[in-house]
Amino acid sequence: MSNATTVFRDLTQGVCAVFASLALSAFALFATTPWAAEPTPKVNLVGRTVPEIDSLPEGPYRALVVQGHELSTRTFAVIGPEVKNPRKRYAGNNLACTSCHQAGGAKPFAIPWVGVTATFPQYRGREDQISTVEERINGCMERSMNGKPLPLDSPEMKAFTTYIAFLSKGVPVGAQIEGAAVLQSAVPNRRAEPLAGIVVYVDKCAACHGADGMGQRAGQRGDAQGYTFPPLWGPDSFNNGAGMNRLLTTTRFIRQNMPLGASHTATVLNDDEAYDVTAFMLSKPRPIKAHLEADFPARWNKPIDAAFPPYMLGATADQHRYGPYPPLAEKQSQMADKRKADMAANKARGAAEPASAATAK
Amino acid sequence: MSNATTVFRDLTQGVCAVFASLALSAFALFATTPWAAEPTPKVNLVGRTVPEIDSLPEGPYRALVVQGHELSTRTFAVIGPEVKNPRKRYAGNNLACTSCHQAGGAKPFAIPWVGVTATFPQYRGREDQISTVEERINGCMERSMNGKPLPLDSPEMKAFTTYIAFLSKGVPVGAQIEGAAVLQSAVPNRRAEPLAGIVVYVDKCAACHGADGMGQRAGQRGDAQGYTFPPLWGPDSFNNGAGMNRLLTTTRFIRQNMPLGASHTATVLNDDEAYDVTAFMLSKPRPIKAHLEADFPARWNKPIDAAFPPYMLGATADQHRYGPYPPLAEKQSQMADKRKADMAANKARGAAEPASAATAK
Repeated sequence: MSNATTVFRDLTQGVCAVFASLALSAFALFATTPWAAEPTPKVNLVGRTVPEIDSLPEGPYRALVVQGHELSTRTFAVIGPEVKNPRKRYAGNNLACTSCHQAGGAKPFAIPWVGVTATFPQYRGREDQISTVEERINGCMERSMNGKPLPLDSPEMKAFTTYIAFLSKGVPVGAQIEGAAVLQSAVPNRRAEPLAGIVVYVDKCAACHGADGMGQRAGQRGDAQGYTFPPLWGPDSFNNGAGMNRLLTTTRFIRQNMPLGASHTATVLNDDEAYDVTAFMLSKPRPIKAHLEADFPARWNKPIDAAFPPYMLGATADQHRYGPYPPLAEKQSQMADKRKADMAANKARGAAEPASAATAK
Repeated sequence: MSNATTVFRDLTQGVCAVFASLALSAFALFATTPWAAEPTPKVNLVGRTVPEIDSLPEGPYRALVVQGHELSTRTFAVIGPEVKNPRKRYAGNNLACTSCHQAGGAKPFAIPWVGVTATFPQYRGREDQISTVEERINGCMERSMNGKPLPLDSPEMKAFTTYIAFLSKGVPVGAQIEGAAVLQSAVPNRRAEPLAGIVVYVDKCAACHGADGMGQRAGQRGDAQGYTFPPLWGPDSFNNGAGMNRLLTTTRFIRQNMPLGASHTATVLNDDEAYDVTAFMLSKPRPIKAHLEADFPARWNKPIDAAFPPYMLGATADQHRYGPYPPLAEKQSQMADKRKADMAANKARGAAEPASAATAK
């Protein structure tokens, strides 16, 4: 490991602990629930038995879980842009949910869905509010799937939430989940190099995703049969508002889950390879999401690798896109500390003054 | 205990085990999840620590939980028919959710909300489908609250589901919950007697709910301040589609939770008193829900104490309203057995014939 990497790892574990969770919160189904004086139950997804649909008795519950599984693994065939019924074309690309959420949403550190039922409603920085699991699903629909939100009363939404609840069986409500989202592994303390990433891409990624990044169609364009291997950029991939368009998060996802078959205990790419190949992938064109400036309205908790304006830390767009990130993390941490101190000062001032005077201001 | 009661208790525990859960399913937040070859986690609400709002740190999560608690305990003041903003008048009466769901939704065997997040989506006989917790809440809005459904994307709905998730902390998803709904206590094997119930009512209920059953207003009509003690019938009470309008369920609720202060370990009324006083209460006029005939579309699992047509067991409306119930339970059990046998026979026939022939039928 390079010295620079060591420094960033130290930073990440020390000063930037707050940042690390903030960076995740907008993208992944992160599962700390900060509410309790009571002990927060903990669940480790690694090595945990995954519920099997075959264990369910026949009936309407099983039928809905099966439908949710189908929607997740063959999204393109059920709600993709090429399905026959125009009203069902909710997704704008031919990806599947499980293009990213590997193993049917059950793989640890591959942004799994196991436990999600137990950890929503939760605060989401992207909306700066408490969000439901349905809202989180629609966050993906409008970004990763580059499409439209599912109606909250649609059978598809119910199938998704039921499948997620099925996967979450046994996880206590409010649990802290080890194995959620992506592993907070080290990322090099330097600018990521798309050009260096090309070498990695050609060597490790192109065989499946194609030299042009367009993936491999299962059948023909227009047949709603999706991809054997998904496109990584271009018009049929995730848009620039997706969590997967953030370099830190996606470096970690790729490090632990790519090429197919890799896991957090059996990685293929090293830290530098993952960082650069992700930069290469994210340097390519992809669909644009309108109104991205509305994301992270609280600003102070906007992830430093969310590479769209407004930028609040006085850094260039290029640095938000490609790093180096530790200086940004440090600035954001200072901003968070200042905000906290200001709030405490305001509170103290409010307590010192008569209530009516404080209100009149 | 009378001999008849003993017989019914035996029936309930034996032949009518299916019936017992069916009878509950439409009304209460019942929590058996029948899916697993894997072990189903069990949680006992009796003696369990209830999460405290005061233990939550300040922030948007706590704010939403507080809002949900307010909606639940002072429903009349937030979404009742007398609130200033006409668009917020979702409830049609001036009850609170906690008029029935005692102790802020946390009391065992008083149809508690603790664990509800962990047990939805679930099959509901009233709709004959898998329902979400939001749909269940709106079931109450249209019946117990005699009002309109909350929009699924409303802040009120999110506050309710967040408060329920807060109460459910620590309960494993898919758990079987002891203390949910109402305790399956014995009910006399005879017709309930509203006239006998009057004596009980005057002695044990009228002091709070009023000789006329109209409850006690906290303030004045029109001030949206609700009731100190809720009306049990009349225009400002639950409508005839509510679960509370079912004699078996409500007898059990009253037996274990009324008068205020009673619990399943400290009952005040005996089985006969609870049965008759409930019959008296349900003999009185209350708002009528339109289209009740659409409830329990599967018919074979319509609760025997759902006292509205269509009736499928060849009994009179009076028997569905007032009992005796064991003969109805026995008939329903036979109907369920026949249905099961028919389904098995159909399946066997389907397997014996070529698939194409079976499809062509």
